[in-house]
Amino acid sequence: MADAKYDVLGIGNALFDVLVRTDEKFLANHGMTKGSMALIDEARAASIYRDMGPATMMSGGSAANTIVGIAGFGARAAYVGKVKQDEIGGLYIHDIRAAGVAFDTRPAADGPATGCSYILVTGDGERTMNTYLGAAQELVPSDIDPAEIAAAQIVYLEGYLWDPKDAKDAFVKAATIAHGAGRQVALTLSDAFCVDRYRDEFLDLMRKGTVDLVFANEAELHSLYRTSDFDAALKELRKDVKLGVVTRSEKGCVVASRDGVVAVPASPINELVDTTGAGDLFAAGFLFGLVRNAGYENAGHLGALAAAEVIQHIGARPQVSLKELAQQAGLPV
Amino acid sequence: MADAKYDVLGIGNALFDVLVRTDEKFLANHGMTKGSMALIDEARAASIYRDMGPATMMSGGSAANTIVGIAGFGARAAYVGKVKQDEIGGLYIHDIRAAGVAFDTRPAADGPATGCSYILVTGDGERTMNTYLGAAQELVPSDIDPAEIAAAQIVYLEGYLWDPKDAKDAFVKAATIAHGAGRQVALTLSDAFCVDRYRDEFLDLMRKGTVDLVFANEAELHSLYRTSDFDAALKELRKDVKLGVVTRSEKGCVVASRDGVVAVPASPINELVDTTGAGDLFAAGFLFGLVRNAGYENAGHLGALAAAEVIQHIGARPQVSLKELAQQAGLPV
Repeated sequence: MADAKYDVLGIGNALFDVLVRTDEKFLANHGMTKGSMALIDEARAASIYRDMGPATMMSGGSAANTIVGIAGFGARAAYVGKVKQDEIGGLYIHDIRAAGVAFDTRPAADGPATGCSYILVTGDGERTMNTYLGAAQELVPSDIDPAEIAAAQIVYLEGYLWDPKDAKDAFVKAATIAHGAGRQVALTLSDAFCVDRYRDEFLDLMRKGTVDLVFANEAELHSLYRTSDFDAALKELRKDVKLGVVTRSEKGCVVASRDGVVAVPASPINELVDTTGAGDLFAAGFLFGLVRNAGYENAGHLGALAAAEVIQHIGARPQVSLKELAQQAGLPV
Repeated sequence: MADAKYDVLGIGNALFDVLVRTDEKFLANHGMTKGSMALIDEARAASIYRDMGPATMMSGGSAANTIVGIAGFGARAAYVGKVKQDEIGGLYIHDIRAAGVAFDTRPAADGPATGCSYILVTGDGERTMNTYLGAAQELVPSDIDPAEIAAAQIVYLEGYLWDPKDAKDAFVKAATIAHGAGRQVALTLSDAFCVDRYRDEFLDLMRKGTVDLVFANEAELHSLYRTSDFDAALKELRKDVKLGVVTRSEKGCVVASRDGVVAVPASPINELVDTTGAGDLFAAGFLFGLVRNAGYENAGHLGALAAAEVIQHIGARPQVSLKELAQQAGLPV
């Protein structure tokens, strides 16, 4: 196995986040399910945006947030995702490269605009996402460069890739190349409703060994196994995948391998502002810990640390150096 | 004098803010003067942006920030400023209308892109702005609708309007209409270097009574009168304008009228994050106090409160309801 050029390469829906603080009434009036990610078409995007308050904008996308976090810890990271060659696409490309991430996916020259997620943040810090995929729908297997995939120690994929029409083929192509090169493949289950849409396919990916590591939050885990019994679901997860990491908000996380289960507490915070990116940044810290061979417990602490940073401000990208945060916390970097 | 349709109407350079945290070295390497606003051309904008880290983006522009703040207190506000009919211009128009501000300036169909300010925020919370005016340069006197101007109790203008080529004519046109309708005209001096570029013209506006109220920070006041003696400068200011309000950062503000001088302390903060918009939001609170006839001292407190809100997070637009903040602080709304 050749030395890895990247520690982690992520593939996901490249989305520009348009974030706004709002109240519960806004969610109710627009028929939104709090805490979820709903796919919306252009007309609904326009209608939601028209009704939304003034926004804070930044680049987002689940796997992209994770990859930016990994780069922020000081690891070598790459991202594959599709934007359009438009103004917002230009901002997106700037931001991911400026975060120190290798990014070479060719932007779409025509077709729909760069995708946007309209994110409503309620007073309790919960985020409700409405995603117009836009150009992210144009991600195709030919966007996957075999040499780049084979050069990453871990390939990280988001479950949301099952939504655009050809991205799952890109996903499977990447996973196959990665395993062919002796690399690891990680998957995040993304969202409880996403799991509900693609449950059988996700279980198939796990049971056939297409993925080696799965990230899920409690709601996604419960959705995957159609149960509200956490321990029963965790037991199933341990059978289905080599390594499963389940985040439980303020209760921390559980790392479930075939050797056993390790629980790691959440990092303390001063104020919960916006949960957008909590799971993404947890995955960043955990994957960083893995590639540094820090052990599951330290990996869990690194994940908790990054998640705590991102939920204390608006937006899903870290505002400070995660490397320095980890050093201050005495965690291995 | 007819009843006012608006409490305050602002005119300024409509700019999209691209904010990033950085270090002193970045400023030094790029020859930036910390704390100032520098005008940049398209090539320099591209070069600075290329070197900048991942950004947080939101609508900005000095007078626009003030007007959004005034609307946030619950007053009736309008804004005049020029964007292009491009993607970022669309975001800009959404944001200002979503803040409850009347905005009807026709966007430019061609010419330069919507203007952007690249704002570097250092660890001490200070902001250094690099502004590419773009479409803001296209603001012309015909963008000034006499009926709208005459319908505002106070017309608020930014000194930065002296930079684009025709905006000062729009400024003077608006001031003349406002006075013809028996309204008040306020000016912010904007920036010490801006004052240095247009000192004689600004003094002329004041001495000829084109403006009734002037906002300045200490550096701008010192630049205006070419002195480092605050008391001497304040004395000059009192001679030159009916009402002068000077902000002094953590030392609060001084309201200087021909009747006397009132000092109001700053509002306490937990953490200084980003000073972008501090002066703009101070002006918002103060003008709101004026239109509510709250008295200079309460107006100063309202200004201090809004400034304190905006410097505790990234970006120059308030993240919470200023009306609720004022209510909680027991100030008149």
